[in-house]
Amino acid sequence: MLDSADQIGQERTTNDGPIIPRATDFAQWYQDIIAAAELVDQAPVRGCYILRPNGYFIWESIQRDLDARFKQHGVQNAYFPLLIPMSFIMKEAEHVEGFAPELAVVTHGGGEALEEPLVVRPTSETVIWSTFRKWIRSHRDLPLLLNQWCNVMRWEKRPRAFLRTAEFLWQEGHTAHATAEEARQYALENHVIYYDFLEECLGIGPIAGEKPPHERFPGAVATFTLEPMMQDGRALQTGTSHDLGDTFGRAFDVTYQGEDGQSHPVFATSWGMSTRTIGGVLMVHGDDRGAVFPPTVAPVQVAIVPVPGRDDASTRAVETAAADLKQTLTKAGLRVTVDSRPGLRPGAKFFHWERHGTPLRLEIGPRDVEAGQVMAARRDTGEKMAVPLSGIATAVQSTLDAIQMNLRLQAHARREARTYTVDTRAEIEETVLKGYAFTRWCESRECAADMQAQSRGTIRCFPFEKHGNEFRPIPNDPGPCGWCGNHATRRVLVGRSY
Amino acid sequence: MLDSADQIGQERTTNDGPIIPRATDFAQWYQDIIAAAELVDQAPVRGCYILRPNGYFIWESIQRDLDARFKQHGVQNAYFPLLIPMSFIMKEAEHVEGFAPELAVVTHGGGEALEEPLVVRPTSETVIWSTFRKWIRSHRDLPLLLNQWCNVMRWEKRPRAFLRTAEFLWQEGHTAHATAEEARQYALENHVIYYDFLEECLGIGPIAGEKPPHERFPGAVATFTLEPMMQDGRALQTGTSHDLGDTFGRAFDVTYQGEDGQSHPVFATSWGMSTRTIGGVLMVHGDDRGAVFPPTVAPVQVAIVPVPGRDDASTRAVETAAADLKQTLTKAGLRVTVDSRPGLRPGAKFFHWERHGTPLRLEIGPRDVEAGQVMAARRDTGEKMAVPLSGIATAVQSTLDAIQMNLRLQAHARREARTYTVDTRAEIEETVLKGYAFTRWCESRECAADMQAQSRGTIRCFPFEKHGNEFRPIPNDPGPCGWCGNHATRRVLVGRSY
Repeated sequence: MLDSADQIGQERTTNDGPIIPRATDFAQWYQDIIAAAELVDQAPVRGCYILRPNGYFIWESIQRDLDARFKQHGVQNAYFPLLIPMSFIMKEAEHVEGFAPELAVVTHGGGEALEEPLVVRPTSETVIWSTFRKWIRSHRDLPLLLNQWCNVMRWEKRPRAFLRTAEFLWQEGHTAHATAEEARQYALENHVIYYDFLEECLGIGPIAGEKPPHERFPGAVATFTLEPMMQDGRALQTGTSHDLGDTFGRAFDVTYQGEDGQSHPVFATSWGMSTRTIGGVLMVHGDDRGAVFPPTVAPVQVAIVPVPGRDDASTRAVETAAADLKQTLTKAGLRVTVDSRPGLRPGAKFFHWERHGTPLRLEIGPRDVEAGQVMAARRDTGEKMAVPLSGIATAVQSTLDAIQMNLRLQAHARREARTYTVDTRAEIEETVLKGYAFTRWCESRECAADMQAQSRGTIRCFPFEKHGNEFRPIPNDPGPCGWCGNHATRRVLVGRSY
Repeated sequence: MLDSADQIGQERTTNDGPIIPRATDFAQWYQDIIAAAELVDQAPVRGCYILRPNGYFIWESIQRDLDARFKQHGVQNAYFPLLIPMSFIMKEAEHVEGFAPELAVVTHGGGEALEEPLVVRPTSETVIWSTFRKWIRSHRDLPLLLNQWCNVMRWEKRPRAFLRTAEFLWQEGHTAHATAEEARQYALENHVIYYDFLEECLGIGPIAGEKPPHERFPGAVATFTLEPMMQDGRALQTGTSHDLGDTFGRAFDVTYQGEDGQSHPVFATSWGMSTRTIGGVLMVHGDDRGAVFPPTVAPVQVAIVPVPGRDDASTRAVETAAADLKQTLTKAGLRVTVDSRPGLRPGAKFFHWERHGTPLRLEIGPRDVEAGQVMAARRDTGEKMAVPLSGIATAVQSTLDAIQMNLRLQAHARREARTYTVDTRAEIEETVLKGYAFTRWCESRECAADMQAQSRGTIRCFPFEKHGNEFRPIPNDPGPCGWCGNHATRRVLVGRSY
């Protein structure tokens, strides 16, 4: 039986329609809050979406934060071409198998049929490793740490805004290393960067871990994943880092001369995070009134709503105070707007900014002006409080910090409340309807396939524990597999996904 | 006869080869300095280039600066899809004619032949105006000011790094307005932003003006251009702003309800600036020793080269001083590197940073450490001077400012020295071999075609004068056309281009 989350949900482009409650229809709620916040629009090409200014702003904020983290880690940005010769994709067997059904193919260019078809990149390992062959000669050229911000294309049968789209925006990091150990280490270090970013910037509290072999990236020897839990209890894979071993180095014949004068194989990692993270933010933080954005990425952090007075003089005083307030907060580095749209009642404006996910609303009316204060309404808790205008920038900044932290803690609390340590098939079946099952698994692919067929739960990962700045596997816990009863050595996270 | 600038120039991917002098072979010099500065590499697909970290860094710097200018002007970023249905491109006759020979066409997706071929965007007017139809209803929705940073594709017969490439990165702005006057005004205002950016950030001193009708963007009613002069005297069209009238509004049936309750046509502008600007920076500022980057966009602004002493103690003192210096300058917000590569003599390091276009080199040896100073070498003038270590950050910053200004003034001076007011065919023919001819033109397309066939000079623009923050056409100057002798009312800029 398909439940509602399997439906695509009807998309709307108008933004004043009702928002169906999460509990009634989570998939439709998702579409509704996207429409209400004016984040995307349908493109004329199926499976593609237009990122409207609000949606794109969130992506720009994500880029700015993540890019700085990469650069601090010694990564440089570059740009590799959109189009890749079909023969490159074919060079690595697992890779071509993984991507073949999703490729968009250019067959004509400049008015002529091309000699060789070109694919629109679904990811860039092949073209990058064909180039690394020229750049890597000696151990002095390693490690090579590159990243690119770009668009990629993967034909999707069941597109869904931000989550599964034919074209999407992402960053893809590609590194080359002298040893297998160093590549593994780098993939894990990068995964810590992703984890910290999801925690600190987006507050969506993921579980980190390693994918089972049958869920690895095509061509990888290990894939590390981040699995934040959405409010319907499902996992959204958000950011993966791959230890590619020497798979691509071998396929593209890349070697380096070591200090020993000998030729050695080169080892690789790759890692990507995409606009899908925005879907994660929506489904972790949103509520029945609309989107809720963490202050870090909110297009507008503070919406000032002037409440008119009974006469022109008091209304003008309110307008002046609102303008001054905007200036003060803008100077303090905040993203602020005054909603001065004429012919719209304050209530309609409150409604508007709630639906747009704006973290903090400041209401200012004639009495507030007289009292030298504003009414502040927090989007996350709904709490309202009077705040004095003197020292307002500091008060607003600390309220935004409190909202950021609260959203993060709420996400953690929800995830923990819905993660169950279970040991039987019946428990797994019941648990994956509402959250994560932490259970033993025998590590057989057949067992995983049966579990998925029966319960629609999939092995999300072998979870990690974070020790300081490092991920380590959780300790072994031998016993019978929760699904088939065969011997298992450790527990995994099982959940439904998108 | 073809001269050297018509050749593509042989591309190299190694970076230690000789640089041919500008005077000997300008086209090869261009390729040589690109290789020496490690800016691009050849991609496996003809006409496409890989932007290496140094090349991409310059683009990131351009993006950062230009994006802030747009946002200050009220523009919001968005993202529209890469693939556009062929039928959209066909909707506007001039537009499809202009782009048809350059299109890359996707015919297969997800393993199947597509019902309708999709083109990889050569520019996005058509898909954006098909969307504006949904977004624009009322006069309250106008003006609508959007921009996107993206990749576009135009099949190129004679590709050349940064200047003419099959895929390139750019920004494309698209705005919608209630009246024809407002659209024209906006296109001009945006053009001032471009002009200021090229002056202040890149220092490449363009001539601004309007293109003659036969050089307009396909579908535009007016195209404004910027034409900086390269060191071989040629014009490089760098940034164009188009007044599109109601061409796209009509083609995509976009109207708005005015305050009068009536339906009105919508007017458009579009404007783009691309990675071609990097080609302009190279050809305006470079010299026979390599690239010269303005501090604003230089990947490394300050290269510190430690000069070892005769004994370990003095060498260690130098290394410590170099590390301290780097820290001081980095804290001051500068992009600094210490060249501590072992086994390389200081002279080889000086050579390296010169070829990489680094604006300022700081040499520090044992005697400098004792004297509490460094030797600073300016890339633009070659000037060397001792600078005390106390207050070094301020001294370095003001030297970088001086370099920025000097590069800009030199570009101006060169352009002015090579711009000739001429009145005869012989003078035009002679002048376009070395620079710009400022001459009367009868405004007949046939005359322009004949001029181009005979002299290879093209009408670059009807130049503007800048008054404060505004462009105005230069005053009329009636007389005989410099080429055909027929009556002309005003002067134009004639030059060779790329």
